Amino acid sequence: MMSRLFLTFAAVLFLSVRFASSLHVMVNGMPGPMAVASAESCVDRGFELVPLGFTGSSGRTPELLVRDKHLVKLVKGPGFADDAVAQLVRLKKQHPNLVIVDYTHPSATLNNLACYVQAEVDFVMGTTGGDFAAMKEIFEVQGKDKKVIGVIAPNMAKQIVAVQAALLEMSRRFPKSFESYTLTVTESHQATKADTSGTAKAIVTHLTTLNGAADTFGNEQIVMLRNDQDSIKFGVPKEALLGHAFHTYRLTSPDKSVSFELQHNVCGRRVYAEGTADAVQFVAQMRAEAEKKPKEKRLFNMIDVLEYGGMQ
Amino acid sequence: MMSRLFLTFAAVLFLSVRFASSLHVMVNGMPGPMAVASAESCVDRGFELVPLGFTGSSGRTPELLVRDKHLVKLVKGPGFADDAVAQLVRLKKQHPNLVIVDYTHPSATLNNLACYVQAEVDFVMGTTGGDFAAMKEIFEVQGKDKKVIGVIAPNMAKQIVAVQAALLEMSRRFPKSFESYTLTVTESHQATKADTSGTAKAIVTHLTTLNGAADTFGNEQIVMLRNDQDSIKFGVPKEALLGHAFHTYRLTSPDKSVSFELQHNVCGRRVYAEGTADAVQFVAQMRAEAEKKPKEKRLFNMIDVLEYGGMQ
Repeated sequence: MMSRLFLTFAAVLFLSVRFASSLHVMVNGMPGPMAVASAESCVDRGFELVPLGFTGSSGRTPELLVRDKHLVKLVKGPGFADDAVAQLVRLKKQHPNLVIVDYTHPSATLNNLACYVQAEVDFVMGTTGGDFAAMKEIFEVQGKDKKVIGVIAPNMAKQIVAVQAALLEMSRRFPKSFESYTLTVTESHQATKADTSGTAKAIVTHLTTLNGAADTFGNEQIVMLRNDQDSIKFGVPKEALLGHAFHTYRLTSPDKSVSFELQHNVCGRRVYAEGTADAVQFVAQMRAEAEKKPKEKRLFNMIDVLEYGGMQ
Repeated sequence: MMSRLFLTFAAVLFLSVRFASSLHVMVNGMPGPMAVASAESCVDRGFELVPLGFTGSSGRTPELLVRDKHLVKLVKGPGFADDAVAQLVRLKKQHPNLVIVDYTHPSATLNNLACYVQAEVDFVMGTTGGDFAAMKEIFEVQGKDKKVIGVIAPNMAKQIVAVQAALLEMSRRFPKSFESYTLTVTESHQATKADTSGTAKAIVTHLTTLNGAADTFGNEQIVMLRNDQDSIKFGVPKEALLGHAFHTYRLTSPDKSVSFELQHNVCGRRVYAEGTADAVQFVAQMRAEAEKKPKEKRLFNMIDVLEYGGMQ
């Protein structure tokens, strides 16, 4: 009995490891910290990291060791090298089950996407600040007759995406249910982040649908904390001062007898890297499904990743 | 031009006041604090308070002055007086646009409901701790051929109901999206409340669907604060120690780098009383719609009230 159980367990373990390791990942955008963190999460999941990655023009970092074990050679990417598509096509021949993770500069996004589509390599793009409408057009026009699947999302932290989706749904279902409630929003990020949190701005649109203040609440009313003293007072741990995203939203009734508060606080990059690895796995699953039965939809976002996870 | 504007304004004002004042409300359960607060909110909205209310058996309070102006005679209600149905029928003849608000003892709920259904008076029941399944059966069986519309809800704070509905929807759409996150829940209420918050228990079922801990998180893990010192430390204002409902839920990632927090904090009873007045208005609207075109659905909850509000 025990030995049968053990054998079943061993078989399940073998199959999971086999499936994970049959997934090969190319990470572009290293040595950028988000790209490196994603490469680490992919390695931790058992995905195989291919020994080549696209980087920017500087060429200051010719190679990088991920998790002290996986050496990745960094070469100039699309926009800086003419043979990027040809390189990808070669790479895909060596690694048929290849998925690209892209955390590059917003200015590189469109070139990179066009290259992935041309070479027909499936991808996950997490670069924030890219022009999504332009990206979608490239995917649809240049990728019309190509076999390529992609996830594009400005925020890869799937739990935050789930909260955003829930608030959007709530604001659609119960608009003005918090009518005349006052909204206050405070966010803290590392001092180097100049602009207001994009997530805060997105969530404010849902909350002002709920309190009916969409026309009067401007993004300039979002309180931005960008210095160590204020951030520490706001609850940010010292060790996260150089990389964090803390958000607090509060809705208060006119007589102040009722208040609702929502916080989402992130230190470091791990939650985004984990979400990226989830998206890589999702792309591989979509590919497997499309091989069995071709599908119309080939461009996805993190909501799709989340909803697919829920259906398993 | 100005005078035309003024006339339009005056006409709108006249019509709104007329509509509001054509709504007559009987409040049962006074001098209980929730019934009194609801009567006040109804008066503040411009509804007409009828000068009669059902009360329990004690008869210690023969009459009550609401908002220093509206005298209500309190008489024994169903279960304590045989002629309750007959009284209601008479009252409805005098006030054809009557809606009952019921905040009585849970033990009186079923008798009261049967009486409202028999007399065909529309109602809003906010009593917590009632047996909803039994109430529904009375409404459906005894009310089969009666023309009666009702709202029954254990929590009349419509904003909290909206949050609950949003979390339910989120947990259905993205189950396990917070897998392996740790849940902590703390709630504070006045020292006289013996049991764990029902709202906290309901919200925990959604949150444990999200973090996959439905089988391991027991309601005994909800931290209950029931003494002044702890409550004040938790943020409860001194003046609300005798009547408040503060809730904090936190989900934390295994490595503690990510946390989400939700708070809903209520001082006093006003938010529930306001929600009750919303429900009264909703019942009157449903009645007006049913008069134009008979409808199947006649028993509603606060989600229905919220969704109808959103559609206006």
